[in-house]
This record gives sequence, C-alpha cells and structure tokens, in this order.
Amino acid sequence: MREFDFLSRVFASNDLLPRSVTVPPGDDMAVVEIGAGNEILIAADGVIEGRHAPWGCDPYVIGRKAVLRNISDVAAMANARPVAIVATAVLPRGIDEARAWRLYEGLRDTGAAWGAPLVGGDIARTSSPDPCAPLEATVAIIAVPRRPDARYALRGNARVGDAVFVTGTIGGAWSADGGGRHLDFTPRLAVAHALDDILGDALGAMIDISDGLGRDLGHIAARSGAGIEIELDRVPISAGIAPRAGIAQGEDYELAFTVREGAEVPAVLAGVAITRIGSVVRGAPSVRVRDGDAWLDATHAGFEHESDGGDP
Amino acid sequence: MREFDFLSRVFASNDLLPRSVTVPPGDDMAVVEIGAGNEILIAADGVIEGRHAPWGCDPYVIGRKAVLRNISDVAAMANARPVAIVATAVLPRGIDEARAWRLYEGLRDTGAAWGAPLVGGDIARTSSPDPCAPLEATVAIIAVPRRPDARYALRGNARVGDAVFVTGTIGGAWSADGGGRHLDFTPRLAVAHALDDILGDALGAMIDISDGLGRDLGHIAARSGAGIEIELDRVPISAGIAPRAGIAQGEDYELAFTVREGAEVPAVLAGVAITRIGSVVRGAPSVRVRDGDAWLDATHAGFEHESDGGDP
Repeated sequence: MREFDFLSRVFASNDLLPRSVTVPPGDDMAVVEIGAGNEILIAADGVIEGRHAPWGCDPYVIGRKAVLRNISDVAAMANARPVAIVATAVLPRGIDEARAWRLYEGLRDTGAAWGAPLVGGDIARTSSPDPCAPLEATVAIIAVPRRPDARYALRGNARVGDAVFVTGTIGGAWSADGGGRHLDFTPRLAVAHALDDILGDALGAMIDISDGLGRDLGHIAARSGAGIEIELDRVPISAGIAPRAGIAQGEDYELAFTVREGAEVPAVLAGVAITRIGSVVRGAPSVRVRDGDAWLDATHAGFEHESDGGDP
Repeated sequence: MREFDFLSRVFASNDLLPRSVTVPPGDDMAVVEIGAGNEILIAADGVIEGRHAPWGCDPYVIGRKAVLRNISDVAAMANARPVAIVATAVLPRGIDEARAWRLYEGLRDTGAAWGAPLVGGDIARTSSPDPCAPLEATVAIIAVPRRPDARYALRGNARVGDAVFVTGTIGGAWSADGGGRHLDFTPRLAVAHALDDILGDALGAMIDISDGLGRDLGHIAARSGAGIEIELDRVPISAGIAPRAGIAQGEDYELAFTVREGAEVPAVLAGVAITRIGSVVRGAPSVRVRDGDAWLDATHAGFEHESDGGDP
C-alpha cells in the first residue's frame, strides 16, 4: 500500500463534504466554518517510537515532536495561530508511570510554549502482548485565523511566474542513529506570520517540508497545476550533506513557499534565512531541478512514509 | 500504572492553563475560548483492535466506534453539536489496502452521519515487526455550542437534591466474544439536545457511561462534591444481565445526568427511555447503591481502562 495513492483516493471524496468545510483534506490543515462566518483550522499528526523517533528515547522527545509537527502545519497556513491541542497515547504493556509522565510532560510543555495548551485526550494500553511494542502519541491541533478574511497560503495558490523560497537549511535533519534536528526543531510560525504580514496577497502557496523538498514542492505543483524549477546550487543545503540527497531526505520542518513576481522578500525574518531557489513555470505539474547541465525530476524525491519498501 | 491516579496528576496541572481554557481537562470535552467570545469544544478518543474491538474484525467497525465514542462525548456536554473530526490510523505491517480503506470508510461514513465530516488526519505504519500488531484509530472531535451562553452540563454541576437519571438500558454492551452493542450504538445526541431544550437551567451534571455506571456517577460525585444514592431495582438493566454486574460493565454509551429537584423529565425522549434511578445527597463524594437491605459502594464499580490488572 502506498500512502499517496491511498490519499488520492481519500481526496477524491472531497466533493462529498459539506460546504462548511472550506479547505478540504489535502492541505497542511483543513478549514471548517463554525457559524457566523468564523472559521477554525484543524490537523492531526502522530509520532511512533522506532519510526519517527528512536527506540528507547526519552518519551518527552516523542511528545515534543508530536506537538512540533502540528505547530509546523499551523505555520504552513500562514494566516493561523494555534489555540489548543488534544493528545492520545498508546502505551506498551508494563510501561512505568515515570515514562508515561515524561510523554505527558513533553506534550504539555511544548503545547504551552507554542500557545496551544493541552486540553484533553486519552491514554490507552496497546493490546499487543509484545513488551517492546512502540510508544505512540497522536496530537490534534486547533488553530484560528489571524485575520478573518479566509485567505490562507494554500498549496494550490502558486501561480506561473511566482518565485520559490525556502526557510533555513535543507537536509541532514536525521542522523544515522535516528537522532538529529527532526526531534527538536523550531517550527517556522514566527517566519510564516511575518511573511503573511509583509507580503499580504503577494504570498502564494506554502507547505512545510516533511516528506522532502522535492516531494513537498511536488504537492504545490500538483495542486497549483504548474511546474516548479529549482536551481540546486541555490538550495541552502545543510553543512556536510550532498545536495541531491538533501532535497530528498525530509523532516526538515522548514517552509517552502511561493511569492508573486516582483514582490520583495527579506533575506532574514525572525532570525531565519530566506532563500530564493527557483520559480513556478508553465507546464505539467512536476519539480525539475537543475544541477549544472543536468535536469533531475525531483517530483517524487522524498520520503513516502507508508510505502512497503522498508523502513525509512 | 493506574489510569485514574495518572489523570489526577494531570488534572493537578489545570491551574497552569491559560484563561482561554474555560473548561479544563476532566470533563467529557474541554472548552476553549477562540476570540470574540466564541468557544469551541474538543475531545479525543481512540479504538485499538483487540482491546476496544475484537481482533480481526472488519476495520470499518473500528473506525465507526472511534467516531461514535467521540459523538457520545459531545452529547454529554448537552449544549454542543459536532462540526468536524480528524483521525489518525496506525496500521500493522503488511496490511492490505482494502482493510485500510474499510477503516477510512468507517471513519468517514460515521462522521458524515453525525454531522462531523472527516476533514484530515494522518496514516502511519507501526514500527512493530509483529505482523499481528493491532490496527488503531484515534479521532479528535470539534464541537460548537448550540447556544452562546457557555452553559454546559459539566460533571461538577450536580447539586444536593438533584434527581439522577439514565437513558436507555445499562449493562450487557459487551458479549463474551468481544462483540455486542458497544461496537455499534446510537450516541444520545438527540436526547441530550432535547433535555437541554426542555430543562434549561434545571439540567445539572451529565456524563456518558463508558467506564461503568457506578464509576461514571463517581466522577460526577467527585467533581460536584456530593454523594449519589442509587436504588438498584430502579436501574434499567439490560435483559439477561445481573443488576450488580450491569452497573459495573461499562461501554454502555448511555447518558447519566442530574436534574434540579422538582423539574419534570419526560419518560421518553427521541425514542429513548429516561429513568430516574436515584438522588444527589449531602455527604462525601461516593456512589452508594441500595440493593434490598444492603448498601454497596459503587464509586469504583466499573472499568479502569489502563489498570495493570489484565485485559478487560
């Protein structure tokens, strides 16, 4: 089973949703109208020990990453601020209370630090008899628009001629031992808000880079019905990482976004470098990367979390 | 590790929550103020194959129950209607797409049927190498108040002198083989709304019965700082179930609620029987059940989901 094929089938049901769902599944968050013209934004994401975090790590790290992933989704909508999270935990048999409490603290502290207090949820013990079953945390996040004008930096909002940017550096978020920056990153919420304030309508599409720069830009290309061309030597690759690998590694939790032709973008925002890496072009939805004289197709360069091809 | 001890520690942190959290953890849903006086309600709950649903069941059943449990929590707030759900799934290794799709359909169809469209979420594969690892679904639900007066049927809202009622029948929701009513019940949303409309301020505390009638009334007693006395022969026990067992079995997903002295409560609402079973009395928080000449302490009669005492 491949994740993106499955999700394509899911998104095919979007037409059946009621009109209250103003941004349906397929973006970083869904948007729902809740009456009197008010909208809320919702997303959910989880962390599984041994898959998204190292086996045997401090459970605080699992709770923290589960929250940070969701804050990163809020950032990618640009016009959104988090208001609350709920969390569910699935615990292996025989876990001691100290470890469960560390998971709770990771969820609670990280939510509080990002303006998203932990307000509820559930804990359950797995039915697996395996004493080494993974610890799992799922977080659902609620956000509200910063402005009530229902304008979000949706994936389908790129236009031919837009410039393409990324925040921070790309690649190298995972160490060989499963550690690394992906366990404790700064979601680019302040940068997204600053871009939203500075650019207004000139801000196009935005996504947070979780699957890999190539694949995530591929989501923007597909939803916007346009091509994206990237200059590999412009991509701010993390130190020590080969550029072609860096754009496919994923879990960067930086933002990739497009900006209308001619709009000025600061080189640094909220202490984070902003780098132009390419353009949105006419053509079939794809991501083409120029590396010297070669053109690579990076549309699928990245991590498909649920492929059967083995562990990430 | 015992669930309720752990949750007591969690609730001890409630004082640290911002003022925007107007109903903190410890009720059927949390309530959060999202600006301009608007509130939303949030809860989350999951279903694990082999724990809350039988091993090897149609995954549709897992998705459906995960949604129904959450709708039941919305009902228990009385002044709330669901607006959306998000879901996350953890899939065992090697699951075929047909089974994953059935899980999705169970989530989507049940959400749609209850006015809570499925608008997002995540699927992930477990890190467990066990091919028989359980299928899991977690649902977070968002609801909005039906009236903007911030009056909900909270667990702490029972008063000495209130009459205590239950909907439907109690006990027998689980068959010996793990099947039974708990897999496909009708959350009492219509009944809760009718009670809210009819009773207004005369509606006291309300809870949905998941842990067991005794234990869930115990939550009302504890939060309201009062005793509850029940007449066992008044409790509408399901056919074929011993009364003392019935009040401790749990997963009934009926409502238990209190009503101010003297208020009239219809015998049937939305096609569901409403039965008076006891009263709220002065005294230490506890649930006492009169069975003929004997008094039983039922404060802890029910199912503590996460105790180490073995499987439910």
